Amino acid sequence: MAEIQVPDMVVARLPLYLRALSHMEREGTAVTSSHELATHLGLSPAQIRKDLSYFGRFGKQGTGYDVANLRARLTKILNVDRTWAMALVGAGALGLALVHYGGFQERGFYIACVFDSDPEKIGRDVAGYTVLPSDTIAEEIPHRGISIGVIAVPAEAAQAVALQLVEAGIKAILNYAPISLAVPSGVRVQQIDPVVYLQQMTFYLGSGSASQA
Amino acid sequence: MAEIQVPDMVVARLPLYLRALSHMEREGTAVTSSHELATHLGLSPAQIRKDLSYFGRFGKQGTGYDVANLRARLTKILNVDRTWAMALVGAGALGLALVHYGGFQERGFYIACVFDSDPEKIGRDVAGYTVLPSDTIAEEIPHRGISIGVIAVPAEAAQAVALQLVEAGIKAILNYAPISLAVPSGVRVQQIDPVVYLQQMTFYLGSGSASQA
Repeated sequence: MAEIQVPDMVVARLPLYLRALSHMEREGTAVTSSHELATHLGLSPAQIRKDLSYFGRFGKQGTGYDVANLRARLTKILNVDRTWAMALVGAGALGLALVHYGGFQERGFYIACVFDSDPEKIGRDVAGYTVLPSDTIAEEIPHRGISIGVIAVPAEAAQAVALQLVEAGIKAILNYAPISLAVPSGVRVQQIDPVVYLQQMTFYLGSGSASQA
Repeated sequence: MAEIQVPDMVVARLPLYLRALSHMEREGTAVTSSHELATHLGLSPAQIRKDLSYFGRFGKQGTGYDVANLRARLTKILNVDRTWAMALVGAGALGLALVHYGGFQERGFYIACVFDSDPEKIGRDVAGYTVLPSDTIAEEIPHRGISIGVIAVPAEAAQAVALQLVEAGIKAILNYAPISLAVPSGVRVQQIDPVVYLQQMTFYLGSGSASQA
């Protein structure tokens, strides 16, 4: 039993493979190939075979991948063969959009409770959640089995919220605020930054390729 | 003057470099290295040097990169030395959150107008925008100089909205709906999918590394 360290860049691609495979399975595709997956995802077939090889053998040479099997294996590898409880902090417009977001449940996540610091919002019902006061984060999170925090507060409040979540034992934070969070090592933060996606597109809108002298 | 085709995976990383450099510049860092950038971004220094080499020479061997200069060059390469007008479709909770999002303006983008198909919302004021009827997308977008569409409608409405945007001449779509959009070739779509980020974190929450027999 040897421990293999998987590079972060490989881990970052696994959810994309899972999403593509789930899509294929819904469409009724039984078998796929690294070439087909590569076309789907804008990667090279070799990259996909190398990424998957970290986790053992999946396809037989020449026969391709069993879609349902590979999807099930990736679901397990990413630990979403269970459902993760999340604490949402911020019951403003974004928080409201997130509690109504239709994409969490079937992919391994649900919002367990909603916090806000605004006295106007605390105690109010938001899509079936009673908004809890942010200063109870430290007591509420541990006994609810919550592992993930979602930050949907304004930029100027985000860092303080992050530290509250960390103090409550949270090890993974999804940050919607447009600010980089400083957290202790051992805590993972992923930032949802729409501008990164927009700038990927404006590269192509402007020129399409680089010209060099 | 030779045209160099830049791989999509390289383009995908450029906004991350720009974000890191802008952060360094705000912090007062004048010079950086591929090693420092690499640590910041979880990439290898060699990868960063290779990515940047598509666009010419930036640093001198041993002296590192001038932060302000490299930031300015990347701003130009990504075509965000100008500001792009975006049409937001969907004036629900998410749309409301997006019009209040503080991260667009200083990084090259602004929301020029807001559409919705709900008669209750059309004509209403949303953060200074008068909500326009979605069935006027085709006439409004071309004469407002809008190049980018942002979809913030429910999943079941997203595909139809995407096609309306394409018919109006839009070539770049930022999609918040939890659904893959089918668009003609030549149109770029980026999907904001929070579950991809969450699953990257649950990989580590569950085990930390892969074990192999």
